[in-house]
Amino acid sequence: MNQISQENILVGEIANGLPLTIPVYRIKGDGTGPHVFIQANMHGAEVQGNAVIYQLLKQLKHLDLRADFTLVPYANPIGCNQKSGEFTLGRFDPITGTNWNRMYYDTTHLVDEFAAQHIHSSHDVVIKEFRQTIINTLDDKLSGPAYQLTTGQRIAYNLQRLAHHADIVLDLHTGPISSKHLYCPTYAKNSASYFNIEHVLLIDNGFAGALDEASFCPWWDLSHAFAKQGREFDVAVEAFTVELGSQEKIDLAAAKEDALSILSYLTYKETFNNGQYRPVTMTRYACHLDDYIAYYAPMGGMVEYLAPLGSHIKAGDPIANILRMERYLSETPLHTLTYDHDAIAILHFASASVNQGTELYKFFTNYTEL
Amino acid sequence: MNQISQENILVGEIANGLPLTIPVYRIKGDGTGPHVFIQANMHGAEVQGNAVIYQLLKQLKHLDLRADFTLVPYANPIGCNQKSGEFTLGRFDPITGTNWNRMYYDTTHLVDEFAAQHIHSSHDVVIKEFRQTIINTLDDKLSGPAYQLTTGQRIAYNLQRLAHHADIVLDLHTGPISSKHLYCPTYAKNSASYFNIEHVLLIDNGFAGALDEASFCPWWDLSHAFAKQGREFDVAVEAFTVELGSQEKIDLAAAKEDALSILSYLTYKETFNNGQYRPVTMTRYACHLDDYIAYYAPMGGMVEYLAPLGSHIKAGDPIANILRMERYLSETPLHTLTYDHDAIAILHFASASVNQGTELYKFFTNYTEL
Amino acid sequence: MNQISQENILVGEIANGLPLTIPVYRIKGDGTGPHVFIQANMHGAEVQGNAVIYQLLKQLKHLDLRADFTLVPYANPIGCNQKSGEFTLGRFDPITGTNWNRMYYDTTHLVDEFAAQHIHSSHDVVIKEFRQTIINTLDDKLSGPAYQLTTGQRIAYNLQRLAHHADIVLDLHTGPISSKHLYCPTYAKNSASYFNIEHVLLIDNGFAGALDEASFCPWWDLSHAFAKQGREFDVAVEAFTVELGSQEKIDLAAAKEDALSILSYLTYKETFNNGQYRPVTMTRYACHLDDYIAYYAPMGGMVEYLAPLGSHIKAGDPIANILRMERYLSETPLHTLTYDHDAIAILHFASASVNQGTELYKFFTNYTEL
Amino acid sequence: MNQISQENILVGEIANGLPLTIPVYRIKGDGTGPHVFIQANMHGAEVQGNAVIYQLLKQLKHLDLRADFTLVPYANPIGCNQKSGEFTLGRFDPITGTNWNRMYYDTTHLVDEFAAQHIHSSHDVVIKEFRQTIINTLDDKLSGPAYQLTTGQRIAYNLQRLAHHADIVLDLHTGPISSKHLYCPTYAKNSASYFNIEHVLLIDNGFAGALDEASFCPWWDLSHAFAKQGREFDVAVEAFTVELGSQEKIDLAAAKEDALSILSYLTYKETFNNGQYRPVTMTRYACHLDDYIAYYAPMGGMVEYLAPLGSHIKAGDPIANILRMERYLSETPLHTLTYDHDAIAILHFASASVNQGTELYKFFTNYTEL
Ligand SMILES: [Zn+2]
Ligand SMILES: [Zn+2]
Ligand SMILES: [Zn+2]
Ligand SMILES: [Zn+2]
Repeated sequence: MNQISQENILVGEIANGLPLTIPVYRIKGDGTGPHVFIQANMHGAEVQGNAVIYQLLKQLKHLDLRADFTLVPYANPIGCNQKSGEFTLGRFDPITGTNWNRMYYDTTHLVDEFAAQHIHSSHDVVIKEFRQTIINTLDDKLSGPAYQLTTGQRIAYNLQRLAHHADIVLDLHTGPISSKHLYCPTYAKNSASYFNIEHVLLIDNGFAGALDEASFCPWWDLSHAFAKQGREFDVAVEAFTVELGSQEKIDLAAAKEDALSILSYLTYKETFNNGQYRPVTMTRYACHLDDYIAYYAPMGGMVEYLAPLGSHIKAGDPIANILRMERYLSETPLHTLTYDHDAIAILHFASASVNQGTELYKFFTNYTEL
Repeated sequence: MNQISQENILVGEIANGLPLTIPVYRIKGDGTGPHVFIQANMHGAEVQGNAVIYQLLKQLKHLDLRADFTLVPYANPIGCNQKSGEFTLGRFDPITGTNWNRMYYDTTHLVDEFAAQHIHSSHDVVIKEFRQTIINTLDDKLSGPAYQLTTGQRIAYNLQRLAHHADIVLDLHTGPISSKHLYCPTYAKNSASYFNIEHVLLIDNGFAGALDEASFCPWWDLSHAFAKQGREFDVAVEAFTVELGSQEKIDLAAAKEDALSILSYLTYKETFNNGQYRPVTMTRYACHLDDYIAYYAPMGGMVEYLAPLGSHIKAGDPIANILRMERYLSETPLHTLTYDHDAIAILHFASASVNQGTELYKFFTNYTEL
Repeated sequence: MNQISQENILVGEIANGLPLTIPVYRIKGDGTGPHVFIQANMHGAEVQGNAVIYQLLKQLKHLDLRADFTLVPYANPIGCNQKSGEFTLGRFDPITGTNWNRMYYDTTHLVDEFAAQHIHSSHDVVIKEFRQTIINTLDDKLSGPAYQLTTGQRIAYNLQRLAHHADIVLDLHTGPISSKHLYCPTYAKNSASYFNIEHVLLIDNGFAGALDEASFCPWWDLSHAFAKQGREFDVAVEAFTVELGSQEKIDLAAAKEDALSILSYLTYKETFNNGQYRPVTMTRYACHLDDYIAYYAPMGGMVEYLAPLGSHIKAGDPIANILRMERYLSETPLHTLTYDHDAIAILHFASASVNQGTELYKFFTNYTEL
Repeated sequence: MNQISQENILVGEIANGLPLTIPVYRIKGDGTGPHVFIQANMHGAEVQGNAVIYQLLKQLKHLDLRADFTLVPYANPIGCNQKSGEFTLGRFDPITGTNWNRMYYDTTHLVDEFAAQHIHSSHDVVIKEFRQTIINTLDDKLSGPAYQLTTGQRIAYNLQRLAHHADIVLDLHTGPISSKHLYCPTYAKNSASYFNIEHVLLIDNGFAGALDEASFCPWWDLSHAFAKQGREFDVAVEAFTVELGSQEKIDLAAAKEDALSILSYLTYKETFNNGQYRPVTMTRYACHLDDYIAYYAPMGGMVEYLAPLGSHIKAGDPIANILRMERYLSETPLHTLTYDHDAIAILHFASASVNQGTELYKFFTNYTEL
């Protein structure tokens, strides 16, 4: 049985001086495979990823590992403990409003100089040196003057530092009420078919603060920078945001399914010897991020959600009823909403009460089979 | 078709001077039946009662009414608009923490003097005069110095004033994640069989601030006060808190079922001529409030809820798994919780993340068939 | 120099499994004086008491102590870390709305049986045995089935357990924006003159959940119970809630003044040999709790507070302006509020925006010189 | 006396169907001066701007106006009514975390085409047509499919639409605990001397979502676009964010001072005939936005703020004490913080409790006399 080790990394302190720590679990492979980093629960209410890590650990203990694994549940010790009423208010820093998954550090400015210096370095040297360059930069930020880092950056940079050691990065999230979907960089489109996830969002190169982007953007830029110099250099890191379903829910059986999905992808990436995990046969749909459309509530009211998540709806199908009891006599109390495009309903808002302008649904449009 | 009228009552003002109003709908009967008052959504996230009122109005329009009806959706204009993250934070005043359903006014101090004065008054005079005495007292509070009323009292007293005009009071709530249940004063136990609700909580006489109590306690006390003087005088008002299911959910089909359940009870109470609504055949279970047990999380962690709501569990059955990934190596990461009594699981907490001591479940124990 | 020892008591666990601990500092005296318990910051935003404990420790280190001291800063590890926007939302449990200082355990039900058994016991035996009886009861609650305790009870009972070992209990709070004031049980009125606090609230015997009440009520009841049996038995414990000023503020110089005020009282209580701390000469005003009047905002709007805190206002004096810009043309935009009694303004609301019915001020009325 | 007119603009609906409206006050001048737009309270806790508008209206009624004025208090009907505990949680949308002052629409993409078409248009035609182009674009967004706008955009675009009619735009804010300061675009540096505000932040051309930027960026870009074609065209709109002091505070006397400051600037801009308001003589300091430094708490704890706001501190001066009572014995409980640059302390955090990484101070560095 493989040995699991634990360390707790210190990522901050709260007002009464108590340390904020994150548990980090590691399992070592035989050194021949890629390094894998998986974290969960950066958004406080999105807890199911912890259960997936639990199920992954159960499997990984018994596998013949080529890869080293780093697994991080409870990635955000503030977010997962921030309650407001019964629910976990863990999507953004309660003080500043900043989304916890928009605070990673952009290292793409390192690319041009590095590419210029390493145009003739071997593939392995490039990988090793560029990784080290990135990590050094993060170390500098973390060891610089303490007054220069926000609470969220301190958490994010510490995690990102661990992630940059890896060749494969999975950030486990969930939607509010959601079907499973996968954020996949376009260069890694082939890998998407190995996850048991029907809905795949294809994203371009561009850093907006998330961990997947922080992980792949510098390598994607490096690939481009070398290409400009005439050298073909594949993007060396694969990073995905895996949206597991709905928030505020632990389901151990579903977590096992999600663990098998991830193990199928990891088998494909040869992180095990004799890996037996195979993808489930299913039709997978791909949608470009530009075609992933938010539908905001066109009026305030109480919502009955009608579009089954994961379902293909036709333009004009009813997607929700809005009940408005305030002016029962002077206007119709029940409004049926439609969307004017064919679409797949991926997720909807978590509450039945919405202001005008609350994000009600997100839809795949112009999607194709993967 | 019966005429519905609307008025908007003013119950407060918010910081930017905007008025807080509540819509009140009325339908008049032929004057031979009891007056019925139904309100919904005093707790902000408990929205389904609004849909039930929508379905009730649809039916009431076409019935041959003996009773006058007053229906109040959106009873709490602060609570139902108070968001914190995606969810509605509407259980308590966000400034003070006071539960919105604990702010009604206790009028039981009026009983003794009234009973002494009216020992020889006719049944009808007692009803009319006591009702008026109560309403006058509330009017005095509402028209007294403005600086003496809290925000919540102003909302509650205005609603209570309307409720005291009625012989039948239904306050529509929901649990967090919940099966249907009914709070029923013991003297009205027979009435409970006319609702299509399997689980009935029997409550004694005692005012703790809720609308049902505010409605029946003075009449119950009056019944006792007359009894002490040797006069038998039945409790003249029936009031129930109807728990419709789960919060943060609008389901129009379920709302129709709940409307039919209420109409069955109202048929029994002869509020219609030729009322056709009959209760559904089902086994109903009664539990005294003292035997309604809160089960608090014995440890912090992420919860997988296992007990199906409404289900009868045996002492020792697993009711939840608590996943704890913080000390995966040094303690067992998965704890199965049990409860040491036979019980019916009525509701559970709305979130999968709990602190030690968070209310995880509420259980009927020592229950009997109704 | 006296030795300070520290232990951290475990009072709960949060969702990610991290323990909630509270630091407890102890200094031992020569065993001849009363035991003193002082805690701070049960309400999360009321931080100044921590600074007072800091200043007390500085002094206590160098005194010739008769008493044992137990000092507990950061009494509420959830409350003092609960942020919502910039401010600390620490007055109530964010999940349930329950005021953190209303969760202590009522042990007064122990009195009657104890008094019957100990009518002939010596004074010292009564004290020792009754204390032990109370503490045993709390220990039973704390060691009973884990599912029976709420998050707040677990914190409160652990602190209360420590407090019951003491003869003198000080619970350090602050108002929102506030002048200093002292909650003092009527039997301990003489002691109030030894604090350097101008405003004293006299409270009767009655348990409503706070630590001061939890500390003195059983002893006060015991005194009454013995009195009924013809035995005079002074209330053996003194407990005060000390309101230090305004929340969200650390001021080390003011904290030193407050420490000297407490040391003056403790000198009077003979907790030191050769105690040199004397009360400051000032006029102290006493007001019975029934005459401590909340003034709720008679309209919604933006408030300019006019009554200086601690000041004596005359009936009809302006106490606040309410600016209402919503209907500038159709009504007067500026309203001046008055109060129709002579009063001392003790505290006001922390924000300039109020709903109709928000508690604007609290006033001493019918006050006398102490 | 000038006539004030009021309209209420509809900017949304909340969950119970109530409309969100904003009061808009207008006063007409003789048509010879620039149009002035002033709004307040976009951030919910920053209420003092409403009092400034109150004081401005008092003055404007009696002036000989050349300009038309549009004044908008309570600009954010959600933000100013969002309470969480005693304080107003109005800096960001409580559902999404988005800063309310980052939701304005970027119209700079209109510039290039417009500049190409109007290279030969007269100055007045350019102004009139470009203004109309911008407003038409906003009208298109507001009248487009309702499901495309978020709650915050709907509020912001409606206000922005009004602001784009003006030549002078003032957005009245406050800091948390703050001295007065002014955000001033570099091209309008001369105007800054007419406000009675000591501290001026100079900002470059660049849109980040705020109202001042939304107002001036398209005109600044237009100026550049014409310059590239060889035509000199001054930036036609001046827009400032005026930071009035601290949040959660109404002070009518200070509001009068701030009104006089604004009237001094408006006199300089010839919005009145015979304007008599002159700037106060004071040393004004300018700092480029790049030199406006956030100082984040280097550790968690309770903070005593030491640097007086508006004061010039020397590198190494104490700026705060951090009290940490958690490990009183094993580390020093009191830490004095310093900053390693000469600076002016402009604002500090609103609470005394900070996590490691909370923004503690903002400092002017490398400042010069204006
Ligand atoms: Zn997420
Ligand atoms: Zn409820
Ligand atoms: Zn307090
Ligand atoms: Zn602002």
